[in-house]
Amino acid sequence: MEQQLWLGDFQIGDAYESESYVVTEEEIIEFASQYDPQYYHLGAEQAEDSFFKGLASSGWLTAAITMKLQVASHPFAFDLIGVEVGLEWPSPTRPGDELYIRTEIKNIIMSKSKPNQGMIDIETITYNQDGEKRQIMKNKILGFKKPE
Amino acid sequence: MEQQLWLGDFQIGDAYESESYVVTEEEIIEFASQYDPQYYHLGAEQAEDSFFKGLASSGWLTAAITMKLQVASHPFAFDLIGVEVGLEWPSPTRPGDELYIRTEIKNIIMSKSKPNQGMIDIETITYNQDGEKRQIMKNKILGFKKPE
Repeated sequence: MEQQLWLGDFQIGDAYESESYVVTEEEIIEFASQYDPQYYHLGAEQAEDSFFKGLASSGWLTAAITMKLQVASHPFAFDLIGVEVGLEWPSPTRPGDELYIRTEIKNIIMSKSKPNQGMIDIETITYNQDGEKRQIMKNKILGFKKPE
Repeated sequence: MEQQLWLGDFQIGDAYESESYVVTEEEIIEFASQYDPQYYHLGAEQAEDSFFKGLASSGWLTAAITMKLQVASHPFAFDLIGVEVGLEWPSPTRPGDELYIRTEIKNIIMSKSKPNQGMIDIETITYNQDGEKRQIMKNKILGFKKPE
């Protein structure tokens, strides 16, 4: 997608979807080994007896892949500077998941002190190929008007 | 730290600190290349002209390292199952930062339907060696009483 929208070019309710990204067992285990070494993220067999009943991705890998998809698909002409983030993981990402994201503009608040700038509330939901929600992310990002 | 505390063994206001972890320029660039390929995360020179005025880690790497420190240092006898997370990045992680975390128990709400289980609110602040806050994370995690 061409990244060309400035503040003023989009409105509340606009939504954008990304391509999809296949998550492998290897990536799940590698990420967990480095950053989240809990047994249910590290191997299919040992994860069977866990809360997740099978190998589950670290939520932080789901978040990182969501960011990857967001960088590749967001339509904004300005940098994606996150200020505040809320995350929920209704279900864990599993090996073989084809993740894609849908981002919706939920609110836009223009700055009073800096008239070329505003705060955009976006909600990004990460789905797998069966429409299962793997992550719900609410972001506040800085938006800018097109420089004159 | 021995991971041995069950619900009932700790109280609101208790706090725990981790060891520290040195973040290198290499790790910042490698993580960004894979998951957050924005120019201010990818190279020192090009980042000079950005909002961050120098190479800045992806917030998601700060979050992943925070998780790593949490897994290594949390005192709980039960698995760390996150339900909801709020994140803020008051300043970006920089090359050479020695990150450590301080986790504080903010609230404990026992389940009415499952008396062996409760929801714990924790706040984890990620500091560098100069005490600069790199991340503020508010988590809700599931806690369990010691099985009888």
